[in-house]
Amino acid sequence: MKTAAIKITDEEYKNRVEIIKNHLNSSGSSGVILFDNYYILYCCGFSFIPTERPIAFVMNAKGEKGLFVPRLELEHAQSYAIVDRVDFYNEYPSKNHPMHTLKNMMDDMGIQNFHSDHDGYPWIFGYQGPKLSELTGHQPIQIAGFFEEQMMIKSPAEIALVSESVKWGNLAHMLLQRYTQPGLTETEVSLRASSEATLFMQDAIGPIYRSQSAFIDGAQADYRGQIGRNAAIPHALAGNITFQEGDVLVTGANAPVWGYNSELERTMIIGPASDDQKRMFDHMLALQDVALAAILPGVPCSEVDLKVRKYYEDNNLLPYWKHHVGHAIGLRYHEGPFLDFGDNTEIKPGMIFTVEPGLYASELGGFRHSDTVLVTDEGIDLLTYYPRDLSSLTIRL
Amino acid sequence: MKTAAIKITDEEYKNRVEIIKNHLNSSGSSGVILFDNYYILYCCGFSFIPTERPIAFVMNAKGEKGLFVPRLELEHAQSYAIVDRVDFYNEYPSKNHPMHTLKNMMDDMGIQNFHSDHDGYPWIFGYQGPKLSELTGHQPIQIAGFFEEQMMIKSPAEIALVSESVKWGNLAHMLLQRYTQPGLTETEVSLRASSEATLFMQDAIGPIYRSQSAFIDGAQADYRGQIGRNAAIPHALAGNITFQEGDVLVTGANAPVWGYNSELERTMIIGPASDDQKRMFDHMLALQDVALAAILPGVPCSEVDLKVRKYYEDNNLLPYWKHHVGHAIGLRYHEGPFLDFGDNTEIKPGMIFTVEPGLYASELGGFRHSDTVLVTDEGIDLLTYYPRDLSSLTIRL
Repeated sequence: MKTAAIKITDEEYKNRVEIIKNHLNSSGSSGVILFDNYYILYCCGFSFIPTERPIAFVMNAKGEKGLFVPRLELEHAQSYAIVDRVDFYNEYPSKNHPMHTLKNMMDDMGIQNFHSDHDGYPWIFGYQGPKLSELTGHQPIQIAGFFEEQMMIKSPAEIALVSESVKWGNLAHMLLQRYTQPGLTETEVSLRASSEATLFMQDAIGPIYRSQSAFIDGAQADYRGQIGRNAAIPHALAGNITFQEGDVLVTGANAPVWGYNSELERTMIIGPASDDQKRMFDHMLALQDVALAAILPGVPCSEVDLKVRKYYEDNNLLPYWKHHVGHAIGLRYHEGPFLDFGDNTEIKPGMIFTVEPGLYASELGGFRHSDTVLVTDEGIDLLTYYPRDLSSLTIRL
Repeated sequence: MKTAAIKITDEEYKNRVEIIKNHLNSSGSSGVILFDNYYILYCCGFSFIPTERPIAFVMNAKGEKGLFVPRLELEHAQSYAIVDRVDFYNEYPSKNHPMHTLKNMMDDMGIQNFHSDHDGYPWIFGYQGPKLSELTGHQPIQIAGFFEEQMMIKSPAEIALVSESVKWGNLAHMLLQRYTQPGLTETEVSLRASSEATLFMQDAIGPIYRSQSAFIDGAQADYRGQIGRNAAIPHALAGNITFQEGDVLVTGANAPVWGYNSELERTMIIGPASDDQKRMFDHMLALQDVALAAILPGVPCSEVDLKVRKYYEDNNLLPYWKHHVGHAIGLRYHEGPFLDFGDNTEIKPGMIFTVEPGLYASELGGFRHSDTVLVTDEGIDLLTYYPRDLSSLTIRL
């Protein structure tokens, strides 16, 4: 008897690598080397924060799977990675460069010509080292595009994990809204909401889940400085702003569940909205409605963005435009395809997108909701369910 | 009259790029393109979280500096980046690939043959695009090694920022230790300590500082699952463990200040240490003492690791070894050079290292302190000042 966890099953990991194996065999490649931490998590369930110590997933065309790690990560890899072997090197840089150990592992697994996502471990955190092509004499075939294709369509288990993530993001957001008041700072409100949501989340599902995210442990809701006039700068790195009556706020909430993310963002106003604020809010809602109606299986991503852009144009809103409609989401909080007029990828059932057209007025603030939606056979299911209307999103004084 | 901030001055940024400009001129290169977010932060003070939307720092051999950003980041870049121009593209992927805008920017700035840290923007978060070499017909000269050299020696202002970081990491750690008790979970203790320390930090220095870190806003102290037996797995991704009497704990604390990091880690024991625990703790302290005494200007990094390894050997501790003595730290929480027997970089005044030899016994737990030290003309200054002795680090029941 074992606890029914809400995670990806071993069977599903097996299916994933089977598809990759077939891809290798059909293209006459004898193996694949992956350095991207998300591709590695996707293939074998091993989550880690990349540093100067190289880590790689290695698979040969027969389907034998290995993980290449520093000594420091050996037990961690043996406990979590769904692989047939874990090879390790002692340390980076050490006297013998770790890449030689990787080369030996490739030789031992019969990998000559191969696919990879990067020609050698990326030079980050002071890491320096040889390219795989220099080590092996073979130029790797780029496999990133193949992975992007594979990861676009979410399985029922993946959809369940994103939906689970939504619940706890929703809780964090509820608390964020409840605690936001003039005179308080974004830092204290965000820390209180995120801490409480994380503790409740741990109490509710702690034993059957892990975050598996490099960025967030638990649930989080915050403003990232998108307050008042600063709201017009999306992705502004937060200072510590004190809320004032009349501020337009743009929020963000997420709670990684076994690595899977969701996105919930809302525009809130402290106190009754001014006429200008109300006008922008209504246009923002209308833009999102246009987008939500346009997402249909069989339609290219570009068409959604084009329809939304038409609304901007028809209503003289282009001066307030800053970005496309949205992006796919899953193990990464941003991923392809993109709801962008330059992305002609066909929308298919099983894709999960954020829908978040925005309006940014330098004197007024930013206006953006983001919802996470699942593409179905008929259209979309909204996975996020937080209220969208102005009344619900007005902070009462 | 203006507030005396504790940040890097415009003058210092100017000096940094002057040195890079001289490097370009001496090697006959007409410019440099940087994609690494830390190199960009180092050159122009612009901090951002990398996504699928490419960002680059561009400088020509005359010293003209530019930042290449998506529309979304334009105002943010104009406000924070110390550059002469900000060029933007509308969106990724869009109809015209952003890299063509970068190519136009390079042409406009007279950059033909050039240095770079990466041949094109790295393929992350679903980004795909051409190499710089394909766009320009020139193979970029790798400049990462040069940057690593430059960033190794910290200026007085950088040392002051790391020292400021130490204070708030120390506060978070004090609270972490104070709140840790059997029956509580690591999540609740870590959230409480980190939240309070962050709010106190904001109250103390909020107006004159920013975090400028992708990972932490404010101060943080936690266990990352390194509790009891799990302590033997360094870098284990945290579950939510309940503290028990007799647990060996390994902590970590940091507080980025204008992007600069420090590292404080301590081994703590809940209740009186057993004889086995005490023996390991004492060896760990002795290992750290060996390392601290070995760090001297003029000595190669490797020698420090060799002396520490000798202590492991002489005391039959090699079965408990998992990693080298430490690493440099600054804008990145890990960077080179490394206190590793394979790194023969000469230790020089102005370098800042973590000193953290560890012992990991599968039945007992992990034992590791990490202190942050500055190399001076005579030896080292300890920047961290948290108690190191067992009595101070025993949680009273």
